[in-house]
Amino acid sequence: MAGRIEARLDELGIVLPVPARPVANYLPFVVTGDLVVVSGQVPLIDGRLGWHGKVGGTVNLEDGMRACRQCFVNLLAQLRVACGGDLDRVVQVVRLGGFIAAAAEFTRHAAVMDGASDLAVAVFGDAGRHARTTVGVPSLPLDSPVEVEGLFRIA
Amino acid sequence: MAGRIEARLDELGIVLPVPARPVANYLPFVVTGDLVVVSGQVPLIDGRLGWHGKVGGTVNLEDGMRACRQCFVNLLAQLRVACGGDLDRVVQVVRLGGFIAAAAEFTRHAAVMDGASDLAVAVFGDAGRHARTTVGVPSLPLDSPVEVEGLFRIA
Amino acid sequence: MAGRIEARLDELGIVLPVPARPVANYLPFVVTGDLVVVSGQVPLIDGRLGWHGKVGGTVNLEDGMRACRQCFVNLLAQLRVACGGDLDRVVQVVRLGGFIAAAAEFTRHAAVMDGASDLAVAVFGDAGRHARTTVGVPSLPLDSPVEVEGLFRIA
Repeated sequence: MAGRIEARLDELGIVLPVPARPVANYLPFVVTGDLVVVSGQVPLIDGRLGWHGKVGGTVNLEDGMRACRQCFVNLLAQLRVACGGDLDRVVQVVRLGGFIAAAAEFTRHAAVMDGASDLAVAVFGDAGRHARTTVGVPSLPLDSPVEVEGLFRIA
Repeated sequence: MAGRIEARLDELGIVLPVPARPVANYLPFVVTGDLVVVSGQVPLIDGRLGWHGKVGGTVNLEDGMRACRQCFVNLLAQLRVACGGDLDRVVQVVRLGGFIAAAAEFTRHAAVMDGASDLAVAVFGDAGRHARTTVGVPSLPLDSPVEVEGLFRIA
Repeated sequence: MAGRIEARLDELGIVLPVPARPVANYLPFVVTGDLVVVSGQVPLIDGRLGWHGKVGGTVNLEDGMRACRQCFVNLLAQLRVACGGDLDRVVQVVRLGGFIAAAAEFTRHAAVMDGASDLAVAVFGDAGRHARTTVGVPSLPLDSPVEVEGLFRIA
């Protein structure tokens, strides 16, 4: 029987990917107490980056938002595993950290990161509202335009 | 009746601003257990950035420190709300994360971030001493020269 | 009597340095509950940076990995103090945050950060596997090529 959050994902037309296996000596997430720390996610789609380059450069603002949304989809896929398959156990999205690959003149980091934040609230409602830190970076792994990490509280 | 920390803020001549309302789908802070996670703050003064540009560029070292100090003032304003108005409930400043917008040649990030750290200790004494991570970034939201996030333990 | 982790450090030929004293109003670590938050470490060796500059610039990939490994050695030195001298109390490396000073074209952040992650697992085994966020930055304190922060769970 699908849970409340799974039903909501269906409504939103979101199919969570099979989470990527770790390719190095680190884990996609660690559970400590009632907190789940999820590793920084890049906007992989079926194992390949959906976007490359810098936001404000080869990636425009709208695609930057879409890329952040995809990072949150990938966070959810890892979080579901951390919850033993039951996303209804998520009590709160505590914090999202957003890293936007951009030039020194870029100023619209917040709008880009809203792509992740808006999906968090669409999926979890008030429990999806979170603390957030968003900054620019010169470069990200694999030439990704954005990276988002997450901290979640589960029951 | 003003508390101990409010009295200390008075002595320091600091008036905490009315904390900004969230402008997007995220929150200024989240409380989880006895921890308060406060979103990254830029040096807003009365709703406008007090400084623009890069530290070591249009913003000199001393102004970079002042900007970090203002970020901590803004963290305090949010933290006071998280504490239900009573900053005496703060047990420990656990961690500050400092992001300094600067060129590739800049090396004095630590001195800039001391603007926030020194105020933490001036306000809270030993409980204000914290773990810290400070890094450079190419750009920050709104063309801010600095951004500081905070993690606090409360009773 | 040396503990299990000290014996493992001996096997690996690692001598933990005397941890550096704080030079400003912040601490090398804060313990909150069963978590230890360790401040961002640069690759100091005997009080001096072992490498300067940018990874992919004056610092090649292999030296970037070595520098990340040294950051983890320095995290361990601080963590040992946090544990009252007994690293066997470490239950889990929860999260490492890696900052790689690099140009906008750099893409191999993950490989560089493996220098820290691989040592975490070599020292702690499965308990050393951790969540991780790795990003590029334009500049770091003292012209360091890398900086690594850590979150650990202790008993």
